[in-house]
Amino acid sequence: MIENGAYIYNQRAKIEKIAEEICGQGFDLLFFTSSGGSLAMMQPFEHMINNMSEINVGSMLSADLLLTGYNRLSDRSVAFLTSKSGDTKETLRAAEHLKGRGVRLVSVVGVEESPLEEISDYSIVYKEGRPQELVFYLLIGKILYIQGAFPDYPQFAEELRNLPSALVQVRKAADEKCKKYAADYHKEPYNIWIGSGDLWPTAYSYSMCVLEESQWIRTKSVSSPEFFHGTLELLEEDVCVTLLLTEGPTRLLDERVKRFAGQHTKKLTCFDTKDYQLPGISKCFRCYLSPVVMAAVLQRISKNIEVITNHSLDIRRYYRKSDY
Amino acid sequence: MIENGAYIYNQRAKIEKIAEEICGQGFDLLFFTSSGGSLAMMQPFEHMINNMSEINVGSMLSADLLLTGYNRLSDRSVAFLTSKSGDTKETLRAAEHLKGRGVRLVSVVGVEESPLEEISDYSIVYKEGRPQELVFYLLIGKILYIQGAFPDYPQFAEELRNLPSALVQVRKAADEKCKKYAADYHKEPYNIWIGSGDLWPTAYSYSMCVLEESQWIRTKSVSSPEFFHGTLELLEEDVCVTLLLTEGPTRLLDERVKRFAGQHTKKLTCFDTKDYQLPGISKCFRCYLSPVVMAAVLQRISKNIEVITNHSLDIRRYYRKSDY
Repeated sequence: MIENGAYIYNQRAKIEKIAEEICGQGFDLLFFTSSGGSLAMMQPFEHMINNMSEINVGSMLSADLLLTGYNRLSDRSVAFLTSKSGDTKETLRAAEHLKGRGVRLVSVVGVEESPLEEISDYSIVYKEGRPQELVFYLLIGKILYIQGAFPDYPQFAEELRNLPSALVQVRKAADEKCKKYAADYHKEPYNIWIGSGDLWPTAYSYSMCVLEESQWIRTKSVSSPEFFHGTLELLEEDVCVTLLLTEGPTRLLDERVKRFAGQHTKKLTCFDTKDYQLPGISKCFRCYLSPVVMAAVLQRISKNIEVITNHSLDIRRYYRKSDY
Repeated sequence: MIENGAYIYNQRAKIEKIAEEICGQGFDLLFFTSSGGSLAMMQPFEHMINNMSEINVGSMLSADLLLTGYNRLSDRSVAFLTSKSGDTKETLRAAEHLKGRGVRLVSVVGVEESPLEEISDYSIVYKEGRPQELVFYLLIGKILYIQGAFPDYPQFAEELRNLPSALVQVRKAADEKCKKYAADYHKEPYNIWIGSGDLWPTAYSYSMCVLEESQWIRTKSVSSPEFFHGTLELLEEDVCVTLLLTEGPTRLLDERVKRFAGQHTKKLTCFDTKDYQLPGISKCFRCYLSPVVMAAVLQRISKNIEVITNHSLDIRRYYRKSDY
């Protein structure tokens, strides 16, 4: 896994050059679009841009973009798209739509020579590289730096070299807790997943794109503030609740859920990025890294559930098995 | 119910004057913020503005706004807030936050002389008036008209006079289907709710703020395009799926779910606004009205479930019963 991180980190010069060219040409909007887990992976960077700068930023599902458009886009806008296969139908059609409007395209794809890479102005191929977010920490981080919104970026980027090994440590440290979690809860009939801010996309996509898609486990995801506008009423002592706590600016919202849910169910599990050390990463940068730290933790749930249920994470009933 | 509609429609002159003043002073952003079902009620108008105009528009949960800010807001922005009680804690604090930044505030509240009205530059009180959306059709419609993006608004506004009676017809027409739906499915252990575009907020908030909050029924809501990125794998012949079909621009996404889900579960119910006549409303305006038409339909589910389960829609375990 450390090698996988190095595969991306070694492209740092190329990635930062893309940031320089984008800023050199100027832009009026940074826009993220894709589908499912791919958009969710990028949304923390929309948060980051909003929280750290005055830069105009937005996101939309590709399927929606194709039917409604996004009225702030212009030929001075830059769009970021990602697809593991590089041929996700809606994402590719969104790229064509954007290209037709003169939007510059930056794609992050898993395989070489994909249709998405073909149509894009810039492309970063990560192959077995992980985490994909590393591309965006470098790309968006450098853009924020050039725009004067992230003066500590050079040190952050240096320390990102240590991220892959730090995440290996996180996975090791999380494994025991996740193994017990998997054993205790893999048969639950209903699972409430909660998170906020930069971890809301994680709660949303892990529950849907991993538990639902690859383990056929029923979930409901809800953001920490919204939990109090309906879902709270479902709590009883045997209702399984999983809460993700971020180190980002919305942490208070998660802590509020923790206090409340702890009083009303015996099946509350809290995964808190604060519980995990990140050797080689300064404390001041941890607030940006909750999504990758949490992804490393949650990966240990998936891997342990897979073993317990003997249900491979790769089995699908329907996805990409038929046309729909 | 017709009188309730008239209560709002009779404020048309006042509402349109607010639109005129906002446009007269100019603005750089129309921004929607509130919590839970209140924000969901306003989000179709964000869609409408995006789809019909070049006007800068955005929305954010009040709880998030307080912790992360929204970087496009300026003292030339206008924010819309709504709260039935007029004292929802987070919404009120968001209003104070926005006021401090010089943002003009327009609030839509259920009761007179509330703290939210007190702090707002403009306020519309709807009391027993329904649907609340009628305020926004007039307010946002008029703004779009003044900005040149909705030339047919005068006719639309005239026809809105007929909306309350049309919605009474919708409720009557929907009752039998909803009664059977309530009888068949009120005991389901898991309910998938799906919708897109201007009906995604309806799917989201009806399942959470009505079924979960007031009937303690377990749900998962997912948008029509996102359904195909995970939740589809849960379908088996006895999994209860409820699909809302809009007449807005994203209808194709709903029809795709209908085709797919119809093949994989016997418990698919489709509620389609197209099935309901709207006497006195021209066909060309129906595309804007899916949220209020669907709300009228779904109200018949709630009312019928309440009778069947003998569980009043007003009972809460926790909401506003204790501090959290």
